[in-house]
Amino acid sequence: MSLLGIDVGTTGCKAIVFRDDGAILGSGYREYPLLHPQPTWAELDPDDVWEATKESIREAVTRAGSGDPVKAIAPSSQGEAMTPIDRDGRPLANSIVSFDPRTAPQRDWWEQTWGKQRLFQITGMPLHTMYSLLKMQWVKENQPDVYRTAWKFLCYGDLTTYRLGGPPAIDYSMAGRTMAFDLKACRWSPEILSHADIDPALLPEPHPSGTPVGHVSASVAEELGLPVVDGHGPLLVTGGHDQPCGALGAGITRPGIAMDATGTVECITPAFDHPVLTDGMLENNYCCYHHVAPGLYCTIAFSFTGGSLLRWYRDTFGDKEAEEARVSGLDVYEIILGKAGSHPSPLLVLPHFTVTGTPWFDPHSKGAILGLTLSTTKGEFVKGLVDGVTYEMRLNLDALEGAGVPISELRAIGGGAKSSIWMQVKADVFRRPVYSLDVSEAACLGAAILAGSACGVYGSVQEAADCVVCVKDKYEPREDVAALYDEKYRLFRRIYPALKDLLHEM
Amino acid sequence: MSLLGIDVGTTGCKAIVFRDDGAILGSGYREYPLLHPQPTWAELDPDDVWEATKESIREAVTRAGSGDPVKAIAPSSQGEAMTPIDRDGRPLANSIVSFDPRTAPQRDWWEQTWGKQRLFQITGMPLHTMYSLLKMQWVKENQPDVYRTAWKFLCYGDLTTYRLGGPPAIDYSMAGRTMAFDLKACRWSPEILSHADIDPALLPEPHPSGTPVGHVSASVAEELGLPVVDGHGPLLVTGGHDQPCGALGAGITRPGIAMDATGTVECITPAFDHPVLTDGMLENNYCCYHHVAPGLYCTIAFSFTGGSLLRWYRDTFGDKEAEEARVSGLDVYEIILGKAGSHPSPLLVLPHFTVTGTPWFDPHSKGAILGLTLSTTKGEFVKGLVDGVTYEMRLNLDALEGAGVPISELRAIGGGAKSSIWMQVKADVFRRPVYSLDVSEAACLGAAILAGSACGVYGSVQEAADCVVCVKDKYEPREDVAALYDEKYRLFRRIYPALKDLLHEM
Repeated sequence: MSLLGIDVGTTGCKAIVFRDDGAILGSGYREYPLLHPQPTWAELDPDDVWEATKESIREAVTRAGSGDPVKAIAPSSQGEAMTPIDRDGRPLANSIVSFDPRTAPQRDWWEQTWGKQRLFQITGMPLHTMYSLLKMQWVKENQPDVYRTAWKFLCYGDLTTYRLGGPPAIDYSMAGRTMAFDLKACRWSPEILSHADIDPALLPEPHPSGTPVGHVSASVAEELGLPVVDGHGPLLVTGGHDQPCGALGAGITRPGIAMDATGTVECITPAFDHPVLTDGMLENNYCCYHHVAPGLYCTIAFSFTGGSLLRWYRDTFGDKEAEEARVSGLDVYEIILGKAGSHPSPLLVLPHFTVTGTPWFDPHSKGAILGLTLSTTKGEFVKGLVDGVTYEMRLNLDALEGAGVPISELRAIGGGAKSSIWMQVKADVFRRPVYSLDVSEAACLGAAILAGSACGVYGSVQEAADCVVCVKDKYEPREDVAALYDEKYRLFRRIYPALKDLLHEM
Repeated sequence: MSLLGIDVGTTGCKAIVFRDDGAILGSGYREYPLLHPQPTWAELDPDDVWEATKESIREAVTRAGSGDPVKAIAPSSQGEAMTPIDRDGRPLANSIVSFDPRTAPQRDWWEQTWGKQRLFQITGMPLHTMYSLLKMQWVKENQPDVYRTAWKFLCYGDLTTYRLGGPPAIDYSMAGRTMAFDLKACRWSPEILSHADIDPALLPEPHPSGTPVGHVSASVAEELGLPVVDGHGPLLVTGGHDQPCGALGAGITRPGIAMDATGTVECITPAFDHPVLTDGMLENNYCCYHHVAPGLYCTIAFSFTGGSLLRWYRDTFGDKEAEEARVSGLDVYEIILGKAGSHPSPLLVLPHFTVTGTPWFDPHSKGAILGLTLSTTKGEFVKGLVDGVTYEMRLNLDALEGAGVPISELRAIGGGAKSSIWMQVKADVFRRPVYSLDVSEAACLGAAILAGSACGVYGSVQEAADCVVCVKDKYEPREDVAALYDEKYRLFRRIYPALKDLLHEM
């Protein structure tokens, strides 16, 4: 009995068929173009996404073969982007993706008419242009015909389930990303929808993640190569937002532990067991929403310069290392990181090479490198970059702890988890044990765990995670080195306040 | 009739025989080791220096041939280092070079017992460990036998003239570097020497630069291949401190113009026609002393990271450019600078990669690079370095102007003057015309001009400079680009105040 996890991202869709022990039986991936009808706008054509989703499912199922047919399916997906559909299920417009800034007027309106604090206390979301509610308001104001004709507005997870044959259903984590969902009451917020003059009937029905909501229709199942039993395809189960799905796939199923995903971006997703809506959370721009593991909540702390800083180094100064990689067949990043010593760099790097994530949410900051001398080496330069992104995440761990979300242990996935040098830096700087995992597609795995729990393959989501998530290596803080990092981190904290205004003017 | 200019530096001695039109007939160069009897100490063995001086003179004279015999000789030299000699002219100890910091207690004593302001008003020197007076006091306190036995303490220019056969004579510019010379009265300061309890008889007799003081002795002349006429060798003429000698060699013979020498270090030496002893001079650590051109005064504004920043770049990130230089035969710096655009870099670089020069005199600052983004290119990085060192010198031009030393035009020499890209940056950032010169050894040329004026080869020092200094190219500020640099420079000025404390703690 196999399980299909789907992850609908901003640039592509991945579908993976997992055996119940977590082994990958087959996978498929398709990309779709991000559309820019105006320079800063960013949209997806929902039909492009649906075609790519179908193709990736078909590919995954074909590769998995017929020995272990898919029993249940759940989606993980990007948040916030919503697609208006008519009664026949036809998309009426493109979906506006998360980082499209066109909803600035709507954001300002909420700030003036309600205030951030009141919105945060109900929804757990610190007011930002990204949320679906503002996108719906934008459609209402700028595309009145679309709004009038719309039957439902669906996020990509919901839209996927719906197109596979299910009802319009959304999970709590995804609903949280709309900024229209009452976190504690677990329902759409009547006062927020009423203030925005949005018809509640336009929204899908909220369910906890891992809820069975229907089946793949026979016709779609046949089209995709999925099994048809008793006149219908596999069970459809509510999945979740990609970050908590990834966290589940990394085994984050109890309070106090967090996923640390380092790819281009670095994102820490901790779990906790009650809604945390303190001032510290709002001030530091931490959202609070439902985890996909039952009874838990989560937040996301992130930096947009995780691995992207090393890629910048490679592309700017790494000619020699690239050549070395070509000749030796080694990974270029391993060669680059090999130059970095295991102790703190004398340099301090403010890693704001692009818009910051939490806790600053500063779109106008810039990167800075401090402490250069005529004897600064390439190795110290590279190590400074790695230290800098890690200090920025320590800043987040400290801010989260201060806001009421303590984290005692991290589980690392993504490209950053492959480097033992970087992993040891994380353990030393964070002063917490960091585990690397043997998980490459955590979001799909998390969705598959939800699907499997819903159909009885696993006794519970926790049991499933314990069964399928394998720890590879454990990195412990080295007290003597950690003390040196502490010293540097103390200085690091002063860089942004000292330079903020100057960087804004550059 | 040819002229011999000698330049006795910290690492080596250069001797050049010039034709009266400035053409080089022959040159010689010898290095000597810098001695470190204790880790931070730095000394020269005066016998090493004298042997190297003789060898470089012999080489220069031999290469020049006998067609145009040397008529007069003047020395240019490093300042501050003094050698105690006995009545037989034998050195009694090594000389302590300029940047040796052992005189910190003597500096503190002067600050407490006299104050910086009073010393500055008499000598034109902002109190610092480097000056000869403090070195004499150190010898008196730590090597009492040497002090007791000493007949004279001579700076390297004086010592060279003396060993060639002249009397113990020092020029006004060199005397200024001792911090014991009364700038306005043009004599050793009785009150300073008395306060320091230094016997005035230990010091050589001060003369204006370009004063005939004797002849090379017949025996030394024969040893060095110099002509002997009427029982003695060529005329000996007082030269000067290397910076003003270089300035003269760059044609700085009237108020308002300055030499900009960019080698490893960058140094701006302007001329002015009266002693400027304003608070602005002292606050910004600008000395004021006699120029070697008659009736003029000069100061030095400098940064220890001029060309050394590009050398750091080459050695750290320039593998590819070095390879390109090897293959193409082009100069590696030309290749590196070729990547830099002609407009301001979006980056701002605080060039304090080593101890700063003026106006900060900060031994604890560090370098910083601000404004990095994921799209920052290698060219922008290099250009940032060039812009940064140039902004630092603009800071000096502005501070000098505020202190009463306006500069309307610069004449550039050294490695930096070879790059048309860098020269245009200087013109644009300084908002002043910058001339590049066809002069490679300005200090020796300046000394030769003094020698030639003293023996009647030229009508005056000014006439000589006009005759021998050739302008190569003129760079004018481009108004539109200069306005862009102004904008960046306005931000640059804020970096050091914002980061000073943080950099001190790194």
